[in-house]
Amino acid sequence: MIRPPRLIESPQNQQFKLWESLLESRGLKKQGKFLLAGLKTVPEALARWPERFSTLLVTDPAQTEGWRLPAGLEIVQLAPALFRTLDAPGTGFPLLVGTVPDTPSIDLSQPPQGLELICALGDPNNLGALLRSAAAFGARRVILLDGAAHPYHPKCLRAASNAQFELTLLRGGRWEDVNRAAGPVVALDAGGADMAAYRWPRDVRLVLGEEGQGIPAALPVQRLSIPTTGAVESLNATVAASVALFSHFAANR
Amino acid sequence: MIRPPRLIESPQNQQFKLWESLLESRGLKKQGKFLLAGLKTVPEALARWPERFSTLLVTDPAQTEGWRLPAGLEIVQLAPALFRTLDAPGTGFPLLVGTVPDTPSIDLSQPPQGLELICALGDPNNLGALLRSAAAFGARRVILLDGAAHPYHPKCLRAASNAQFELTLLRGGRWEDVNRAAGPVVALDAGGADMAAYRWPRDVRLVLGEEGQGIPAALPVQRLSIPTTGAVESLNATVAASVALFSHFAANR
Repeated sequence: MIRPPRLIESPQNQQFKLWESLLESRGLKKQGKFLLAGLKTVPEALARWPERFSTLLVTDPAQTEGWRLPAGLEIVQLAPALFRTLDAPGTGFPLLVGTVPDTPSIDLSQPPQGLELICALGDPNNLGALLRSAAAFGARRVILLDGAAHPYHPKCLRAASNAQFELTLLRGGRWEDVNRAAGPVVALDAGGADMAAYRWPRDVRLVLGEEGQGIPAALPVQRLSIPTTGAVESLNATVAASVALFSHFAANR
Repeated sequence: MIRPPRLIESPQNQQFKLWESLLESRGLKKQGKFLLAGLKTVPEALARWPERFSTLLVTDPAQTEGWRLPAGLEIVQLAPALFRTLDAPGTGFPLLVGTVPDTPSIDLSQPPQGLELICALGDPNNLGALLRSAAAFGARRVILLDGAAHPYHPKCLRAASNAQFELTLLRGGRWEDVNRAAGPVVALDAGGADMAAYRWPRDVRLVLGEEGQGIPAALPVQRLSIPTTGAVESLNATVAASVALFSHFAANR
């Protein structure tokens, strides 16, 4: 049974303008809402985390025929041009509007719980790919430093494949705050000790540098490097982090 | 000492038009030349593989002051608008014009030599990131199937960080040709056996599926899966491949 949806046709509509603002970090922060797009991620998110979403945006009500929709979910039909504006990756598939959960601050003087990731990746694609690996390899707590991309940015959501909903995201403050983090704390650094010889504790904080900048020189943490042939100057940041996360996971299964 | 460069100011100039065509796969194939951009990769490539490059493109001859330039390298100065057209990633830094090396066909009935990668990644960003990991983790021979992106596409070069120049790239034909590949041959597949229990031989072929499609169901190879928590449906393709390459490297150092 298809519910008759509300129709929005004007680009001046206030609600449409609010959703449009969610394509940028500023609007995400101001509104506390996000847009999820994706042929796999939208149905999965609706089935597994229905309470996180308020609205489903469609261009044609028939698009949701056969879907099991949660009782509280509002369906809104958008004129095609409006829909395309919100559908940044061009999926042509219904979009979800969700509520950005609170991101509490973490007290880094408390010891780590399991594998925790600390990062300040500023590129939403890179952050999203990292979150996907974090969820895959069991880093349930991800601590975002000032300067990190918004974890619900459309590009970050796209790269993360719904990992956001599996993780506990926390705010970690500035790089200086990491100085006081309770250990063990290790950082990926091309000049560090061979990671292959490191015995991963179950509870540990893994620190990643910013793209192109690495870890602040003064950070008082143990530095590990991923062994390579040396044929290329460095690994891709997401690849390096994923290999480290995998190594922790493999050592603690 | 700065050599006086030739100046090109017209977008109708034949040589400029040839270089412009190198921004797309079709032009790359037709001309057998490529454009390299990058603040780190251009100086590194010029120092380590000078014989691969014929021309350095600048907007101002002063940009190369203090550089040690190979004797045979031609310097061409481009009007700013022309330069920006060729400088796709917007580096504002001199560009190199190089010659695409031959990509011989491989006879897959011969056994593998070291770790060989077989792939058909169609996205040049993904292929580039993969080549970077291949070079880092010692897969010196990379076998590209029909449908793979052009390995000298600007996006592929950008993601690979000069890995192309360290690798032997070979043409592998179609997926059907992989059926006849001499073993051992393993493929990454979410339904495969746990990779953590696999003893990596030194000489082995690792097959990667196409983005979103995976490995053809009929391919007669051993399937391995990377252990994860299961919290996300799948790993990013580059991450999965990199973790497998790292595992081979760690087992055979």
